[in-house]
Amino acid sequence: MVSKVGLAVFGLGRMGLHHVKNIIMSPRASLRWIVCENIQDANAVKEEYNLNTQCVTPDKVEQALEDSSVDGVMIVSPTGTHEDLIQKSLDKAKSVFCEKPLTPSVPSTRACYDLAESKGKPLLCAFQRRFDPSFYSLYKQVRSGSTGPVRIVKATSRDFPYPPVDYLRTSGGIFKDSTIHDLDMVSWIAGSKPVSVFAYGHAHNPELREFKDNDQVVVVISYENGSVAVVDNGRWCPYGYDQRLEVLCDKMQLSIDNKGVNHLITSGDQGTLLPRPEDNFMNRYPDAYRNELEHFLNVVQGKEEIRVSKEETIQAMRLAELCFESIEKQKTVPYTE
Amino acid sequence: MVSKVGLAVFGLGRMGLHHVKNIIMSPRASLRWIVCENIQDANAVKEEYNLNTQCVTPDKVEQALEDSSVDGVMIVSPTGTHEDLIQKSLDKAKSVFCEKPLTPSVPSTRACYDLAESKGKPLLCAFQRRFDPSFYSLYKQVRSGSTGPVRIVKATSRDFPYPPVDYLRTSGGIFKDSTIHDLDMVSWIAGSKPVSVFAYGHAHNPELREFKDNDQVVVVISYENGSVAVVDNGRWCPYGYDQRLEVLCDKMQLSIDNKGVNHLITSGDQGTLLPRPEDNFMNRYPDAYRNELEHFLNVVQGKEEIRVSKEETIQAMRLAELCFESIEKQKTVPYTE
Amino acid sequence: MVSKVGLAVFGLGRMGLHHVKNIIMSPRASLRWIVCENIQDANAVKEEYNLNTQCVTPDKVEQALEDSSVDGVMIVSPTGTHEDLIQKSLDKAKSVFCEKPLTPSVPSTRACYDLAESKGKPLLCAFQRRFDPSFYSLYKQVRSGSTGPVRIVKATSRDFPYPPVDYLRTSGGIFKDSTIHDLDMVSWIAGSKPVSVFAYGHAHNPELREFKDNDQVVVVISYENGSVAVVDNGRWCPYGYDQRLEVLCDKMQLSIDNKGVNHLITSGDQGTLLPRPEDNFMNRYPDAYRNELEHFLNVVQGKEEIRVSKEETIQAMRLAELCFESIEKQKTVPYTE
Amino acid sequence: MVSKVGLAVFGLGRMGLHHVKNIIMSPRASLRWIVCENIQDANAVKEEYNLNTQCVTPDKVEQALEDSSVDGVMIVSPTGTHEDLIQKSLDKAKSVFCEKPLTPSVPSTRACYDLAESKGKPLLCAFQRRFDPSFYSLYKQVRSGSTGPVRIVKATSRDFPYPPVDYLRTSGGIFKDSTIHDLDMVSWIAGSKPVSVFAYGHAHNPELREFKDNDQVVVVISYENGSVAVVDNGRWCPYGYDQRLEVLCDKMQLSIDNKGVNHLITSGDQGTLLPRPEDNFMNRYPDAYRNELEHFLNVVQGKEEIRVSKEETIQAMRLAELCFESIEKQKTVPYTE
Repeated sequence: MVSKVGLAVFGLGRMGLHHVKNIIMSPRASLRWIVCENIQDANAVKEEYNLNTQCVTPDKVEQALEDSSVDGVMIVSPTGTHEDLIQKSLDKAKSVFCEKPLTPSVPSTRACYDLAESKGKPLLCAFQRRFDPSFYSLYKQVRSGSTGPVRIVKATSRDFPYPPVDYLRTSGGIFKDSTIHDLDMVSWIAGSKPVSVFAYGHAHNPELREFKDNDQVVVVISYENGSVAVVDNGRWCPYGYDQRLEVLCDKMQLSIDNKGVNHLITSGDQGTLLPRPEDNFMNRYPDAYRNELEHFLNVVQGKEEIRVSKEETIQAMRLAELCFESIEKQKTVPYTE
Repeated sequence: MVSKVGLAVFGLGRMGLHHVKNIIMSPRASLRWIVCENIQDANAVKEEYNLNTQCVTPDKVEQALEDSSVDGVMIVSPTGTHEDLIQKSLDKAKSVFCEKPLTPSVPSTRACYDLAESKGKPLLCAFQRRFDPSFYSLYKQVRSGSTGPVRIVKATSRDFPYPPVDYLRTSGGIFKDSTIHDLDMVSWIAGSKPVSVFAYGHAHNPELREFKDNDQVVVVISYENGSVAVVDNGRWCPYGYDQRLEVLCDKMQLSIDNKGVNHLITSGDQGTLLPRPEDNFMNRYPDAYRNELEHFLNVVQGKEEIRVSKEETIQAMRLAELCFESIEKQKTVPYTE
Repeated sequence: MVSKVGLAVFGLGRMGLHHVKNIIMSPRASLRWIVCENIQDANAVKEEYNLNTQCVTPDKVEQALEDSSVDGVMIVSPTGTHEDLIQKSLDKAKSVFCEKPLTPSVPSTRACYDLAESKGKPLLCAFQRRFDPSFYSLYKQVRSGSTGPVRIVKATSRDFPYPPVDYLRTSGGIFKDSTIHDLDMVSWIAGSKPVSVFAYGHAHNPELREFKDNDQVVVVISYENGSVAVVDNGRWCPYGYDQRLEVLCDKMQLSIDNKGVNHLITSGDQGTLLPRPEDNFMNRYPDAYRNELEHFLNVVQGKEEIRVSKEETIQAMRLAELCFESIEKQKTVPYTE
Repeated sequence: MVSKVGLAVFGLGRMGLHHVKNIIMSPRASLRWIVCENIQDANAVKEEYNLNTQCVTPDKVEQALEDSSVDGVMIVSPTGTHEDLIQKSLDKAKSVFCEKPLTPSVPSTRACYDLAESKGKPLLCAFQRRFDPSFYSLYKQVRSGSTGPVRIVKATSRDFPYPPVDYLRTSGGIFKDSTIHDLDMVSWIAGSKPVSVFAYGHAHNPELREFKDNDQVVVVISYENGSVAVVDNGRWCPYGYDQRLEVLCDKMQLSIDNKGVNHLITSGDQGTLLPRPEDNFMNRYPDAYRNELEHFLNVVQGKEEIRVSKEETIQAMRLAELCFESIEKQKTVPYTE
């Protein structure tokens, strides 16, 4: 019998619940604490799945962090709480898994990583798409050399449905809230240092202009190895959650298509109707979330190198900042750290 | 909090373990007993998932059946044990979920259902494909009338990989072991009484001829409503587990395509390569197994009518027998009960 | 400059006109005569394309056949006239291209081929699908051995739109009028002698029952090499002209999909809509008709062996007869010549 | 009988021959002259298709232009000859069809149009993709309003095979030689005036750097109506001639996929292999070339408004210039005329 990794989960929103279920199904993890605002939800989960888990509100987070049976924490709470929870957890020498963004800025993100290093504990920024079997398989194939050098990486990424404007108002802007996934993805695939960044943005919903946000953006990043990335990211998609990637290499093109909601095809006088894509990231990426957890358990147990590095996370954050700057200045900006 | 349904699982092979995991993840079910030959496997599962489950060997099956906290049993043990376990479970007034085939013959299957009726307990033959979201959605659409009458139903169903000949020797023959799923599926969709059955079979692997079995069969069934079904079922498929359906109706055609292993597409000088289908039923039908369990829980709690009826199960069994007869006599045979 | 093959075309219906245009575009052919009922249509074509072609009515067919500059004839006139025109043309030692069926029965078809042999002239039955690049490429691949032995050949073939009942009444029945293409196709691919034939038929349109015809048929043919063919042929299809083929071999499956009317895809809240298939054989098989003509020219000039043999044409005709017999007798019938 | 449009074709390269064949097959056109360097090729065509056409070398172009039976000219000769031939033809009051680019610069292109206007004769820049049924159908649907406003237009356009460097050296650069098709296409679909242009370029083949050309470019154009276009154009594609378009609108996405070389699909242990795209524009756009000719005939006969306007052609040319400027200056440039 493998020894189990003791976990505390902070936050029990839709995503938190998703992680909790994956923990329950992993024979390698043990869910010790759920720390969340709505303690009734936590207790309901505890009862439904017959768990030996302590459920407390965020003011008692220290209790969970004092628990020596807790090896790692998974931070799935609201964005504004991430930085503080990362620091507190690292202070108690816990391994940390945290949803993006770790913090609102590059310097504070860097500080978190520095703390992690000083404590000798891993800090994993949960770019879940990297753990999706299709994206990971594409990445491995590109890195293997069998595809030849990368020429162009194109990501299409569209939310469904349009998020509430009140959410967007406090989201930190599309680049840090949404495009950051794509900025990380395309740079990970390109496998090279960014040279310059061009960004275009438009707010089809005029309400967003009040807080200088956009709901359709295009980003072009050039890399030192001669490859280029194009990101098309938007808040609106009329046909579902759209997550595609195309990577043209010298010898072949690799692409990732959407996952349909089912496998039913209808042929009629209008043509042949294929199923629409899944509606959200939890349905699109169930394997990714499972794999991401297993990776974190491996990292906690020292069985695997962390697959999202400090440099990569900071670079994605920095790219998001430069996108905003490019739009503000209406020009291409060089990549600087 | 909903009251939980107490379950005992008989058998802990690959499929049994799959069901057990679904039970763990269902907030509505409670796994009371695992009854299986290899008690160590059961104990490992118990420990891994932190379960309050009793694990015993099959000679102690009575203990589980005496337990009043057990509402239903799930029989996933070897085929030869089904009939006996069904009877014992029904005798103790347990609701029964059983993998196909319930018994080796029509009369004994009928006897099991008669017993279930006399006990007022449900007996569910686990034709899992019916619970797959795609197949079920197709079925609902056909029954809704929006497609117009069914003209032809075509099922393609191919195993992967080729099963061991030793397994086939004791399997009861391709029609009862494998085609029966398709015979049930096409009749369910056709929605009418069979009129006649034609079957063709060939053993590409000559070893099968010793025990009069085939590894590629074709079945044509005509129905009272003027529709016809064609089943293409084989033990060998060079590209994965193939499970497709095409239903031509007056107003449209509905079809189900395979589920790919992932979403990665490769375009090269040979063309565009799409992912191969999943390799087995557990990967192809994860949703079906979950839905099947939820259906059983609903039936046990009286919340839903049973969706695989006595008549349907017997009819599928009878069709399998007539397929064999059609090949033996080398002629079309009328459907009789 | 290559020497041109002088041609006479008999019949100027929709299909005849299609052949005429292909002749005009072939630098190797010269259109000497058009023989058709409606002489005005012929003259219009002559004028539009600036041709040196003589246009006469069928009563003057002898004139065309006496013309020594005519090397070959293409018979595209109504089915009832085929046999007589084949004989007259062969009598004058012309090479003959004729749309299927050559004659209404096996003996008279055989007699035509015997005449062709005695005159030393080719008689080509225009099974055009064989000349389609996709089907031909599939055939070549199967014959090359790279696919391994054929296990099952499945043809789906559906007319669009439903033909007028008056046409069907005089068509000779679905097997000789339509299914014959599929019977030829599947046997060509199977590459073996038929052993037995089973056919099922149903008239969804009750008017067809008056003249014992069906509008949906299924045929199963077993072959000496252990392969089996399944044909699904119907007069009605709600989504266009459907022409598909699936060939399962030991090492791979080859299949032919429909050709869409264009390449426009629409993604909306119902899903992703692909273009419907072409509506008719002329739009589906433009390359096949061109290649078929080139093949005929090659055969006339002695540059290529004829690709549709006497034996194959007679076999397709015989299979059509046995399909009808199988339905009449409601049983499987052995293949006999 | 419709009156025919008399045509003279200048140039008989691969593309010229393609146009000639379309003229032969159009009942509405009459090919009076072929003017080309290699007079033997012209005579061979004349003989093969039995034409009443005069074939002369370019030094005798005046003869063709003096011929009053010539209504229109089709200029398919080398790029460097376009401007002169356009002027001469317009001077003789001929309608003009010309392959892109009309001239090497915006002012000279404008001058050609001014001349056409003063002569009251049409000048059609042959952006053939606009006449492809799929692209045209997409365009019509967007303009109909049923799709809602355009958000983003993305064109992928990749040559196959890599053109000879000697050709590229004199091509005028990728933007004017190749991307111009895409610049026209995306602006046509966007249906609005360009606001700004950003371009990125890279020469994967270092030989191109000598003459400041690139073999992979990305262009982003913003439009007054809030839509944005992204063009990915390259000289190299490992899987064939790639021509795709994606148009995201408020209510749906429309996209154009490639046309496969055939319809044969292979399923094996690596997955399902779909046919590769056609290898070149003549095989990809046969319908477009036919439709383009019919359009030109309609315009000559006053039956249809010209579908590629002066403003559009100049705009495409101007965008190509600004792309080059954007790369030179490494910044986004405003669109100015």
